[in-house]
Amino acid sequence: MASSDSNATNMLQTIRYNRGSLQLLDQTKLPLESVYLEIRDSNDGWNAIRDMVVRGAPAIAIAAALSLAVEVSNLDDFNGSTDDAVYFLQKKLDYLVSSRPTAVNLSDAATKLKEIISKAAATTSEARGVFQAYLEAAEIMLEDDVASNRAIGTYGASFIQNQTEKLKLSVLTHCNTGSLATAGYGTALGVIRALYSGGVLERAYCTETRPFNQGSRLTAYELVHDKIPATLIADSAAAALMQAGRVDAVVVGADRVASNGDTANKIGTYSVALCAKFHNVPFFCGCPLDFHRPITFFWTTNCH
Amino acid sequence: MASSDSNATNMLQTIRYNRGSLQLLDQTKLPLESVYLEIRDSNDGWNAIRDMVVRGAPAIAIAAALSLAVEVSNLDDFNGSTDDAVYFLQKKLDYLVSSRPTAVNLSDAATKLKEIISKAAATTSEARGVFQAYLEAAEIMLEDDVASNRAIGTYGASFIQNQTEKLKLSVLTHCNTGSLATAGYGTALGVIRALYSGGVLERAYCTETRPFNQGSRLTAYELVHDKIPATLIADSAAAALMQAGRVDAVVVGADRVASNGDTANKIGTYSVALCAKFHNVPFFCGCPLDFHRPITFFWTTNCH
Repeated sequence: MASSDSNATNMLQTIRYNRGSLQLLDQTKLPLESVYLEIRDSNDGWNAIRDMVVRGAPAIAIAAALSLAVEVSNLDDFNGSTDDAVYFLQKKLDYLVSSRPTAVNLSDAATKLKEIISKAAATTSEARGVFQAYLEAAEIMLEDDVASNRAIGTYGASFIQNQTEKLKLSVLTHCNTGSLATAGYGTALGVIRALYSGGVLERAYCTETRPFNQGSRLTAYELVHDKIPATLIADSAAAALMQAGRVDAVVVGADRVASNGDTANKIGTYSVALCAKFHNVPFFCGCPLDFHRPITFFWTTNCH
Repeated sequence: MASSDSNATNMLQTIRYNRGSLQLLDQTKLPLESVYLEIRDSNDGWNAIRDMVVRGAPAIAIAAALSLAVEVSNLDDFNGSTDDAVYFLQKKLDYLVSSRPTAVNLSDAATKLKEIISKAAATTSEARGVFQAYLEAAEIMLEDDVASNRAIGTYGASFIQNQTEKLKLSVLTHCNTGSLATAGYGTALGVIRALYSGGVLERAYCTETRPFNQGSRLTAYELVHDKIPATLIADSAAAALMQAGRVDAVVVGADRVASNGDTANKIGTYSVALCAKFHNVPFFCGCPLDFHRPITFFWTTNCH
């Protein structure tokens, strides 16, 4: 079986970044067209988030941070002090947060980046040093998210395999939690990718995810792109599929996790969870613990 | 509160019939256009069923029977014997059944009509007598279905009200079981109509019913037509709505009922039933016991 991991350069990327250059896959045109938009500064980043060119909690935060990184690395004529540099970046970050005020990852990222540039300002006498610290921090966010997702994938895949004696597993997922929602690889879809690259995935089932079809437009697109055996189903068909014994596990992502372990996610997740509970199908939530401390994997045994 | 019952002439009709004339509402054009197609004979009826102009188990059977009734009542030059008349009608009925071989109501109706014309042939010496018997039997099917649905509505509404002390009830339904699926009034949607005309309906929730959207195209159209307070929801939102305490009962129809009381219905019905079970929301199935013995109303307490 071909490994999707072994050919990482072919992995679907919503964010293409090299220092000084950022391109975002225009998700509003998927799955019919795969077009990358050039993002030259925080203004382009703000518009891309507002217009849903990029979506998914981790992807939004990283795209915002990197749009400002591109602007910063192409700044030729900044003549201010370190304080001016801090003020410049803080204003730009506040502006970027306003593109999607409800995206907690985005405001969390902005807060973390503000702390980093404030610390940098205390240890350098040049604006350039502040900008350099920002650049490196934004780029680490990109790397950390992919690393975090790969860790979630590896951990989640082995955790699921340890729950069963089956050699091949079929896994159902809801919404889009893949390369298109993150910096790459994905959270819940990362677990499916890891199962596939480990040769133990029988089939992925992805729901349409009404009313905005993140499943049929985005997850199905990713699964086809990576040549993972997959079937798109109506959201309401999940229960019948479980009743027929076709689903060995459910893996979803999370927009947020409460301190008691409750997770908030796309409409329909609760319905899938109830159906899984009734059919004794294990239900997992794959998500990072926080931005810099990855690898969380919940086994949800109770719906409450 | 205005009564939807008191103004029966305004009730949405998928089948408009007077002896010698049949019109079917073209459901493929709903909800954007309300166009009635003239059905002059069994050939037009066959095409209307094949092209989904008319759908819904009871409506298909009655539309088929009436298309032949129109053909028969406009037959001016039939010079055969009673046996010829029987043979003529049997061939036409077999042809009509072939328009949707999986529609059990349709083949059941054809079988019943064949019995009626065979009996008629034994008691009359004229072809005209056989045709007259067919005409009357087909017309009785139309009347019986509306009467059956109204009885289901009245019985179901009072049954649901007896389960609760609430003065106003919100009811969720799946797929389309209304005037557009039957000869008129509807089965499960008939119960909602009866609750509304009795002044006890707080709100109807109808699901989109993916993948063919019978809920968003047809049920929502009927509810708007009848000015019944209603909200269209994604199929997967039913669970969250129940969790929020917004659903007092679920009422669905049935394509078929097995002898043990199990019902077969549109994909997604099982999912709604599981969610209702988990939230202790009573789940009902409104359907006729058979074509001529109406009024069945199940209270489903177990999902198995």
